[in-house]
Amino acid sequence: MDVFSKRVARVQQLMGRKGIDYLVLAPTANMFYLTGLKTVADERLQVTVLPAEGPLTLVLPEMYKEYAAKIHGHYRLLTWPDHQDPVELVMAAVTTKQGRVAVDEKMWAGHFLSIMRAFSGFQFVAARDVMSEVRVCKDETELALLEQAGKLADRVMGEVLKEIREGVTEKELALFIENTIKALGAEDISFKPIVASGPNGSLPHHITGDRKLQKGDFIVLDFGAVVGGYCSDITRTFCLGKATPEGKEVYRLVQEANELGFQSAREGVPCGDVDRAARGLISRAGYGDYFIHRTGHGIGLDCHEDPYLVEGNTTPLRQGMVFSVEPGIYLPGKLGVRIEDIVAVTSDGPIRLNNFSRELLEI
Amino acid sequence: MDVFSKRVARVQQLMGRKGIDYLVLAPTANMFYLTGLKTVADERLQVTVLPAEGPLTLVLPEMYKEYAAKIHGHYRLLTWPDHQDPVELVMAAVTTKQGRVAVDEKMWAGHFLSIMRAFSGFQFVAARDVMSEVRVCKDETELALLEQAGKLADRVMGEVLKEIREGVTEKELALFIENTIKALGAEDISFKPIVASGPNGSLPHHITGDRKLQKGDFIVLDFGAVVGGYCSDITRTFCLGKATPEGKEVYRLVQEANELGFQSAREGVPCGDVDRAARGLISRAGYGDYFIHRTGHGIGLDCHEDPYLVEGNTTPLRQGMVFSVEPGIYLPGKLGVRIEDIVAVTSDGPIRLNNFSRELLEI
Repeated sequence: MDVFSKRVARVQQLMGRKGIDYLVLAPTANMFYLTGLKTVADERLQVTVLPAEGPLTLVLPEMYKEYAAKIHGHYRLLTWPDHQDPVELVMAAVTTKQGRVAVDEKMWAGHFLSIMRAFSGFQFVAARDVMSEVRVCKDETELALLEQAGKLADRVMGEVLKEIREGVTEKELALFIENTIKALGAEDISFKPIVASGPNGSLPHHITGDRKLQKGDFIVLDFGAVVGGYCSDITRTFCLGKATPEGKEVYRLVQEANELGFQSAREGVPCGDVDRAARGLISRAGYGDYFIHRTGHGIGLDCHEDPYLVEGNTTPLRQGMVFSVEPGIYLPGKLGVRIEDIVAVTSDGPIRLNNFSRELLEI
Repeated sequence: MDVFSKRVARVQQLMGRKGIDYLVLAPTANMFYLTGLKTVADERLQVTVLPAEGPLTLVLPEMYKEYAAKIHGHYRLLTWPDHQDPVELVMAAVTTKQGRVAVDEKMWAGHFLSIMRAFSGFQFVAARDVMSEVRVCKDETELALLEQAGKLADRVMGEVLKEIREGVTEKELALFIENTIKALGAEDISFKPIVASGPNGSLPHHITGDRKLQKGDFIVLDFGAVVGGYCSDITRTFCLGKATPEGKEVYRLVQEANELGFQSAREGVPCGDVDRAARGLISRAGYGDYFIHRTGHGIGLDCHEDPYLVEGNTTPLRQGMVFSVEPGIYLPGKLGVRIEDIVAVTSDGPIRLNNFSRELLEI
């Protein structure tokens, strides 16, 4: 049995156990995981329908017919020309009248609304319950790819460090990062690189802009590479010139919080406890209000996926879970510091898939 | 009244007319159009709720608070920390018990499923009906930006043409295109450039890969730039070396179909007729089965938006509508040819926003 057939069988077994009658996926990492197909979501309906028993059906626009036929044969392929209503084809894949449908969380609501016609009388739940369960613990092949992606990101960090100087813009650094990621052989970037300098650093998802680096800036660099479908995600914060005493103190706290989060990431520990380990130190030092996001997110085929390291998540960590540990402190109008590594839970405790220096580098 | 307040007022007027009680938007071009805010969609709930009367409410993760407060003040901003349930905040923006909710087509189904709690007892429809109506005819400012984006794409085509030679890979060309788009001052690419060489050309959405260009290849180049939020989208097909007689014939047909589509794009003409104008020629020449997609898509803040030039679309063209005209012929295992321009409907007839040569260039 090939890897895709095995995965489909495992998902169907789980669907049976959870009382899910149909799994309905959009062209996301879920579809790639079950079929090996990679297409881009757009306004044309692309749907994968998997019943709890029986074959998987792919409904795709006609323009993907040649591609889909090439990749893999273990599914029924139905294609539709642009002027036809594709919902008819989805209905052909639905052979019962009621039950529960698990829907891909990333399916566009417009498509969801239109396929509801094929599933009238059904209840809808999120596919996460099923798909996360099969994807959340990575096997050896997946771990090897995540490690490669992490090593590649470490190398890029080493290269971009050399480009940091007064006057260079955030956008120039971001472009350098993208090109270096591709030049080193990654198939893609995990997400648009974030380069947040000086006061922009206090926006965790700052949109990289035209600001020029200035002496005294902290510079937050956050990016990742995709290798074999799997993502990496690293953040380092450098200082251009000498850091102020406050900057140094903030940096030291984030660095220690990163270490505490990492050390706590052991089998059996609830996800929320990793967040608490990292956050506790920052809160006790009086910066709790400035750590304005959770400690981390799972990573794999998606850059953000289960498990989330957030207060209230009681899910115990298991071997093969992989996630970011990325505490940060954000002082509006002044600076931001974030240090992020990807961590894998193993039988020997946590290991980091990023190993670029976490010390404060004053350039 | 600023531009955003005007747009909100216009949308609310339309909601009243169409019997929509709430408009619920995700962080998409719709949100940008009404608020000026640009964030990236992810698993954290970000929702804009606009009632038919009354103020707009934005529900955003806490990490966007500083950014959202900076941009614009005409909305109520509610933020939630990562460990809280944001649906409670959405519920605070809903003051009635039933009615119709228009949902952003690009909202993730996972978010849609979770906010349904706030709207239990409501009916759901797609927001397109409202948002498309206000966005589909571009004003002068928008047309100027679309023209700038088109001119920039023309310049990039001129530059990439110089890079086409035996042995260069699709990925290398795609990277060159991305970098040139950014170097010429665009804020972003409209979508990942498609470089489809030789037999890969028959896949309209080919994933750019490691194939090296060979003598005799047709090379399809499809890309666009974003300027001031507005997208361009151009496709040209070049031949490396001499084209075969069949290649020349296919090229000539696509070129003529592009011209016929363009000429037909006049005020009052149904969208479907533009498709028929372009397709008719190709079909009469016996290549109808190899033109496997519609003739075009609208373009603006989204690279694909209304109006769609597809069989069965009876919507009459209006002044200010802007869309692609992009006939293609795809011969599996052999080659593909597509020629795409962006066309605007004006009182003086159609004008093209792309003007790079459409003649067959044998390089």
